[in-house]
Amino acid sequence: MDTLCVVGLGYVGLPTAIVAAQHGYTVIGYDINPNRVALINQAQPPIHEPELKERLTDVIASKRFYASTQLPKSDCFIIAVPTPLGRYCAADLTYVFAATDAIIKNLQPGNIVILESTVPVGTTDLLAKMISQKTDFIVGKDIFVAHCPERVWPSKVFHEIIYNDRVVGGVTLACAQKAAEIYKKFVQGSISTKSAPFAELVKLVENSSIDVSVALAHQVATLAEEAHIDPYELIETANKHPRVNILTPTCGVGGHCVAVDPWFLIQAYPHKTRLLQAARLVNDERPLQVITTTRDALTQWRKEHGATNCTILVLGLTYKANVDDLRESPALKIAQTLCTEKDTTILIHDPYVPQYKQEELFGSHVAHLESGLCQANIVLILVAHQPFKNLMLSPTQTLLDFSGLQLHRLQKAHYAAPHAHKQPQPTY
Amino acid sequence: MDTLCVVGLGYVGLPTAIVAAQHGYTVIGYDINPNRVALINQAQPPIHEPELKERLTDVIASKRFYASTQLPKSDCFIIAVPTPLGRYCAADLTYVFAATDAIIKNLQPGNIVILESTVPVGTTDLLAKMISQKTDFIVGKDIFVAHCPERVWPSKVFHEIIYNDRVVGGVTLACAQKAAEIYKKFVQGSISTKSAPFAELVKLVENSSIDVSVALAHQVATLAEEAHIDPYELIETANKHPRVNILTPTCGVGGHCVAVDPWFLIQAYPHKTRLLQAARLVNDERPLQVITTTRDALTQWRKEHGATNCTILVLGLTYKANVDDLRESPALKIAQTLCTEKDTTILIHDPYVPQYKQEELFGSHVAHLESGLCQANIVLILVAHQPFKNLMLSPTQTLLDFSGLQLHRLQKAHYAAPHAHKQPQPTY
Repeated sequence: MDTLCVVGLGYVGLPTAIVAAQHGYTVIGYDINPNRVALINQAQPPIHEPELKERLTDVIASKRFYASTQLPKSDCFIIAVPTPLGRYCAADLTYVFAATDAIIKNLQPGNIVILESTVPVGTTDLLAKMISQKTDFIVGKDIFVAHCPERVWPSKVFHEIIYNDRVVGGVTLACAQKAAEIYKKFVQGSISTKSAPFAELVKLVENSSIDVSVALAHQVATLAEEAHIDPYELIETANKHPRVNILTPTCGVGGHCVAVDPWFLIQAYPHKTRLLQAARLVNDERPLQVITTTRDALTQWRKEHGATNCTILVLGLTYKANVDDLRESPALKIAQTLCTEKDTTILIHDPYVPQYKQEELFGSHVAHLESGLCQANIVLILVAHQPFKNLMLSPTQTLLDFSGLQLHRLQKAHYAAPHAHKQPQPTY
Repeated sequence: MDTLCVVGLGYVGLPTAIVAAQHGYTVIGYDINPNRVALINQAQPPIHEPELKERLTDVIASKRFYASTQLPKSDCFIIAVPTPLGRYCAADLTYVFAATDAIIKNLQPGNIVILESTVPVGTTDLLAKMISQKTDFIVGKDIFVAHCPERVWPSKVFHEIIYNDRVVGGVTLACAQKAAEIYKKFVQGSISTKSAPFAELVKLVENSSIDVSVALAHQVATLAEEAHIDPYELIETANKHPRVNILTPTCGVGGHCVAVDPWFLIQAYPHKTRLLQAARLVNDERPLQVITTTRDALTQWRKEHGATNCTILVLGLTYKANVDDLRESPALKIAQTLCTEKDTTILIHDPYVPQYKQEELFGSHVAHLESGLCQANIVLILVAHQPFKNLMLSPTQTLLDFSGLQLHRLQKAHYAAPHAHKQPQPTY
């Protein structure tokens, strides 16, 4: 097993291809987007991720990796394509099926096909069936098909590809074992071999578990806000209980995994997913609460200043801190909604999203951090990007911090808590 | 501050009184139950808890503690009475109000009144109001009223009273500070001083958080069972993800806290507690799933053996492992429901619940462990009591383990998974 083809060069596929190349495989990255392929071959990362530029430069220079829009023959194929939400919140498997069809044409006896994309339970067995029906190969004997869900954390992708434990679910036991061999060359965590549906369910359960934990943080934040208590201080105190560990609430849940994957379970088991459904709704409702609180602060500001035109600086657009990823971002939705507010000047800034991209989305609303800060009456922090940690506001500015940075706890005097117009609870 | 009166000598009050006495206070325990008071004064613990007997004997012998049905005068009063669910899932505060009324008659200037019972947000301020209205004292000046929610884990109560961090919520800042002083003598964890509503909300949030975490475990177990996958193996694998930590599913949630306290929040904020409501429903549904699975196994056993009369041994009745506490126990409800099953002999055994109590509840169903094991066709483990860890079943017996002990993973051959009649997923 020397050659490896990674299908889909996105947030997971590209780093996986690079790590595999750095551990001895000859890797070809296949992507249907010619611009992306060209950039990668020039060692220009199409996404922001620590270490990516250096590692990409390394494997391009050593000729262990290149990208192509032509699917090559290969000993092993790893599919890492998006599986977004389709109609009625069902998984859209278009890309997975297209990748499989493309691979089928190049299959040779002994090949291993591994699906890393997150999919509904049963999908990997379906791919095996597609292969059996469209070729003369017997899966488990001639061709080996398995699911090995990715588990990486954007901004720590390279560390996690190498050190995380993995689960490999085979269509047969031989499939699981063959696929596990592929990963053993570059994964230092443990590799469990299970059935394909087992691995599919594990992945969906993992992300649903994260969604529920985040929903709990948001539910608690909402309750604290209703009781006029600082949610961050409340959660910090609750977490002193030896069996409680509530996450830090933010402005919502985004990204391509946690906000999407629970639906694959809800779709398949509508009557057995009451908690997961509630979590999805609570997390989807969170940006609306942020918008409502911002409007409350706006009303309050106008009342206090006897003025109408107010300037709000919105800081952060991505779905998490210190990345450039806008997929399913609640901050993006909040910013877009606030832009429709009357008699309000909205300024937008995100240090990680390329300028051209920000201008594409927000035109003249885009501002530099310093000039935005000078003009703003209200500063709304939505994402805990590193550069926002040392912001200094003037005493006349209202701070609304939903990023989890908790800047207001360092700058107590300027904090307009949600329901700031009501009497807050003393915290002594 | 030398004398301390603990009102209510139950699972929290009695250990608290003992620890306070062992740390230099002269403590009188007040309880309305004369039998309980008599037992305690003879150094006979009315409940099962490690270290209780030895510590009680110590403080009785040293005359630093005694129990009484007469409420004494005291420098400080700690209220630790039950706050069960009342009608429409509202908190029943009868015992709290009765305790407060009793204390009011004995109040002297400088006294401190601390509520440890879990209560809805606003209750402590209400007690302060009761005191102000029924006496001439000014709360915060003459009398100090605070809430200091207990955070103990049955079976580790003494360790946790001493080492856990505590939050003290005062009706005024002076109330919080005075109450904190009381705990500083015997608590080695940190003590935060907050407002009374803050402390009330923290406690409700803590237990709601635990309820949500347990509900997630049960939701995942149900999904795994639907997919014919062993839930324990699935969760073990999911927990290898660096940001996932799903608890071990059992047969439901019981006890006086986790199954009760979320309702105090749901009652107060019905439109802001969607996740907490879902968690309560998922956890309350779990015993029904256990009953259904047991019935499925019964049907399967009859089919395989061509027989009708089947003997089921039910192991464990309490709401958690290694305690005698039956409050809100799902295992108890499951056992009671199974006793109504036709053509089935139900045998019941719990090594921690006193024999007389078991016979009161289950009459002739009560069995010894060994004889029950000899007779049983199906062994249903509901609670992970220590003595069940080394059970040896014969190959003809069906094991259903919902306790979290995971005995079936050591005795694979005998495991009848939920939906055992369906084809289970291979796990390789």
